[in-house]
Amino acid sequence: SRELFVLTYGALVAQLCKDYEKDEDVNICLDRMGYGIGIRLIDDFLARSAVKKCRSYSETADMIAQVAFKMYLGVTASVSCSSAAGNEFSLILDKNPLVDFVEELPAERASLCYCNLLCGVIRGALEMVHLAAEVTFLQDRLKGDAVTEIGITFLRKAEDRKHKRN
Amino acid sequence: SRELFVLTYGALVAQLCKDYEKDEDVNICLDRMGYGIGIRLIDDFLARSAVKKCRSYSETADMIAQVAFKMYLGVTASVSCSSAAGNEFSLILDKNPLVDFVEELPAERASLCYCNLLCGVIRGALEMVHLAAEVTFLQDRLKGDAVTEIGITFLRKAEDRKHKRN
Repeated sequence: SRELFVLTYGALVAQLCKDYEKDEDVNICLDRMGYGIGIRLIDDFLARSAVKKCRSYSETADMIAQVAFKMYLGVTASVSCSSAAGNEFSLILDKNPLVDFVEELPAERASLCYCNLLCGVIRGALEMVHLAAEVTFLQDRLKGDAVTEIGITFLRKAEDRKHKRN
Repeated sequence: SRELFVLTYGALVAQLCKDYEKDEDVNICLDRMGYGIGIRLIDDFLARSAVKKCRSYSETADMIAQVAFKMYLGVTASVSCSSAAGNEFSLILDKNPLVDFVEELPAERASLCYCNLLCGVIRGALEMVHLAAEVTFLQDRLKGDAVTEIGITFLRKAEDRKHKRN
């Protein structure tokens, strides 16, 4: 059952809002906490999903959206590639269970990325399989957007860049 | 999957340990947060468990240990009644999934009730079905005890006391 998790997450965000006046600081803190969780969660994910090595960024994005999201949040996300270079992806959630008990953000918290922990989790987990990525919310239903959209930009490895230059 | 929940809970406790120097303050805060969660979680529990009204404290304790714990933590607790008056119960957990990722409490946090949120959740949920109770940890494997034991003391209602006096 996810309800206890979702409510506990709400308590965490509320506590951080007490601790930090600026939304930006709350967002950073959630992302950092998520990162710490992601680097530990990846072992659990690899063990239980029994997935094989992904051979492309696209496969990796699908794995997060279809398998990992299902496993930890009980929902799947749809994926679209948003760059010609093939390293930017959008994960689109029609339903975000983490906000089940949130009516709307208070007016004074308009810049809060309520679910920013998720970005950190994805970033941390990816780093543990040697994929550097930037993960951010691009759209958020809590802010009036039609869907919730998480953007993942895989960062080219140093060797890749070097190779290209040669 | 509970891993994300368990790790998020750990992040919450860690944050409170940053916020409050005294373990006692962290414990109080966790209990209060749990209370706020319990008064919301009870609706979900009643809807999904489809339980009927409990007719005794003993039945209520069993319901928490067998049905609610299973639903939200994935484990059941055994119950023993620990008072002749029949209003004190012990819920004993052989396995506590909330501490899955905790090795041990740091020496300077020896008085921390790491899982104190649970006490608050139970207290809040009970209050919403008109049962006043005190809920505290009596034993904790994190503190070297053989088991984890949560004590629930149902507080007699004012009318009961009045009735008795007459």
